[in-house]
Amino acid sequence: MHNCEIICVGTELLLGDILNTNVRFLSKELAAMGIAVLHQSVIGDNSERLANEVRTALSRSDIVITSGGLGPTPDDLTKEICCEVMGFELTVDKKVLNNIESYFRSKGISMAASNKKQAYIPAGGTVFRNDNGTAPGAAMEKDGKCLIMLPGPPRELEPMFIEQAKPFLKKYSSGSIISHTVRTMGIGESALAEMVGDLLGNKNPTVAPYAKDGEVLLRITAAAVDEKSAHELCKPMIEQIRARLSSYVYGIDTDSIEQRVVELLSEKGKKIALAESCTGGYIAKRITDIPGSSSVFDCGIVSYANQTKVDILGVSPDTLEISGAVSKQTAAEMAQGARRAGNADIGIGVTGIAGPGNDSSNKPAGLIYIALADKDKTFVDKLITGRSFDREYNRYVASSYALNMARLYLEGFLGG
Amino acid sequence: MHNCEIICVGTELLLGDILNTNVRFLSKELAAMGIAVLHQSVIGDNSERLANEVRTALSRSDIVITSGGLGPTPDDLTKEICCEVMGFELTVDKKVLNNIESYFRSKGISMAASNKKQAYIPAGGTVFRNDNGTAPGAAMEKDGKCLIMLPGPPRELEPMFIEQAKPFLKKYSSGSIISHTVRTMGIGESALAEMVGDLLGNKNPTVAPYAKDGEVLLRITAAAVDEKSAHELCKPMIEQIRARLSSYVYGIDTDSIEQRVVELLSEKGKKIALAESCTGGYIAKRITDIPGSSSVFDCGIVSYANQTKVDILGVSPDTLEISGAVSKQTAAEMAQGARRAGNADIGIGVTGIAGPGNDSSNKPAGLIYIALADKDKTFVDKLITGRSFDREYNRYVASSYALNMARLYLEGFLGG
Repeated sequence: MHNCEIICVGTELLLGDILNTNVRFLSKELAAMGIAVLHQSVIGDNSERLANEVRTALSRSDIVITSGGLGPTPDDLTKEICCEVMGFELTVDKKVLNNIESYFRSKGISMAASNKKQAYIPAGGTVFRNDNGTAPGAAMEKDGKCLIMLPGPPRELEPMFIEQAKPFLKKYSSGSIISHTVRTMGIGESALAEMVGDLLGNKNPTVAPYAKDGEVLLRITAAAVDEKSAHELCKPMIEQIRARLSSYVYGIDTDSIEQRVVELLSEKGKKIALAESCTGGYIAKRITDIPGSSSVFDCGIVSYANQTKVDILGVSPDTLEISGAVSKQTAAEMAQGARRAGNADIGIGVTGIAGPGNDSSNKPAGLIYIALADKDKTFVDKLITGRSFDREYNRYVASSYALNMARLYLEGFLGG
Repeated sequence: MHNCEIICVGTELLLGDILNTNVRFLSKELAAMGIAVLHQSVIGDNSERLANEVRTALSRSDIVITSGGLGPTPDDLTKEICCEVMGFELTVDKKVLNNIESYFRSKGISMAASNKKQAYIPAGGTVFRNDNGTAPGAAMEKDGKCLIMLPGPPRELEPMFIEQAKPFLKKYSSGSIISHTVRTMGIGESALAEMVGDLLGNKNPTVAPYAKDGEVLLRITAAAVDEKSAHELCKPMIEQIRARLSSYVYGIDTDSIEQRVVELLSEKGKKIALAESCTGGYIAKRITDIPGSSSVFDCGIVSYANQTKVDILGVSPDTLEISGAVSKQTAAEMAQGARRAGNADIGIGVTGIAGPGNDSSNKPAGLIYIALADKDKTFVDKLITGRSFDREYNRYVASSYALNMARLYLEGFLGG
């Protein structure tokens, strides 16, 4: 298996001004190709430190990939340093120069003289054309080592890597590493780990649990000679996990619970309506994040005030008076009211205390009631998040819980 | 000025499974303290590579900060390696052990034997207590070098850094670098750059524009001997910018436009109601993200379907028939309807095509009408985002535009 290091060049990364998404993108892609990333580093626009870093990286790894520092200004020195370390000359490439000139023409602006610097490429290297900017990338190979230079902006780096650097690196790829994700809801990480405890020690594929804001993911990763074989290795493991975890599993490689809910509603030709208090539109927002949700979702009511609950949702003033706005009964009437107001098959009602801190009643922040009503029945659940001071968490988890309740209902797990 | 390097330990970072938010957080904080971050690196759970990295970092920098690898499993070896390199012994700390035990007790679970490993701390070092997990952090100082170890999970690392490591590092801080952000809306980056062009070359404070999803920020950064002097340097620059940009400025160091809108509504004792079509609850979600929004927001209607627009908002069927759901007239009637249904001072109506891709009419995705109604008048604006395939962008920018319209109205810039 070939080893690789990634060196990102940029003062803005050292200052913490931007998140380093390039290194994550490259690492993920390389892992999937069966190339092991052993080291990532970030340095500023300093020629000595950059030269040292490139030299050290080449001394211990087969492949070194840099991002950034290919711009037109004197600060940008990645190409100069890398060529010096690898022993390659820089020469003007006419084709690249033409590309840069036509890039500026297409934007209706004239090319600055400094941009000519970007047309210099390592003689004897491989050039990667830049379809989204002016700095070309390049690859150099010598003495069994490979050095690849990519531009810094993600919208230039990502397509250049996928379309040009990845095919170039194919010869270094030793098989494939493939991951699938089983997504679960309604069960904690340790309880889930117990149900699949014996599988967590498996070698190939490996199985690893990963908790994330109110849900638990299981990542199944297989290594094999090619992608297809790696997928084949994952398959029986995924089936076994699915059989054990049953209704906790809401999807395999699904983007999100809202994606799954919209799919299920579409499949079954049903419509959902919402009445949200503490989630304040979060569930509606998540459902309408999904393209095509307009065929399953007509109407959502954000009823922050009691008067809105009464006027639009038809919650009884007596219920609010006797049980309170944050109660099982109010959630149930909100779900029924949403269903009626939206003329839908299913209504969801959510009421609770988002925090931070408790409200004027003595109910704690993080206490949330969630109801689902169809034409015959109403189901109500109570959720206690235990995080009184985390408003965003409470709202997100409550919206997830409500979406999962809809998923369980549509899959026939909720009293049919 | 003292130099610093950051070493993040974690295989999940090398695999590209997660974004490295820790390194950005730490770099930003250190920059603000006047400590220069020269190098960032990531390595896996490998003792030899980790030892080499720590040794190299200490040889060229005054301060080295590690994150991750403090867990209870045999994989976690940051503490062991760092102590070895620095020449510190590991000893059990009774107080830390007590803390770990009571952490588990508070969660109602019994402590695993492996967690005892986490109670070992460098003898003669400074311990940083972990209020959000079990792994304590620590600092070691020797021969003019300082090494700080922090846990990997951001919700443990961030508070530990702010509350304990930052005060500890104060003695290494050389003056202060302070940034303020002027946030604007309704003007593009290049138009704004022209209005403040002469200020962009200023040395101290520096002024830098930064475009971000439909708004433009201007970052003003000053360096001085202490925080107070740095703030003083920024002040006249901020005032000058504010005077030039006038109504485009919605806040200085404000978190968000929704924060500003909730503040303005509270100040003026006014209530807002919403009618959302293409934004699908996004505006309601953003308003209710703000604690205390319940005093200014009672009611939001997500009217994805025409029938909901008619039934709940009272939009005229003739309007929908003649002008269409995505039209100036429909937006206006939605705003008026929201105001009425929510019994509010101001109503907002948003209707448009979120995409991806155009709808069945020949209207393009990214075309959005936004209306604001008070008891006397209705204002309608038309927004064309120009990004037909970016649903998330279109929805976000439309919700920002609507919030900014409310801000302009409340500040008296919108026809009084």
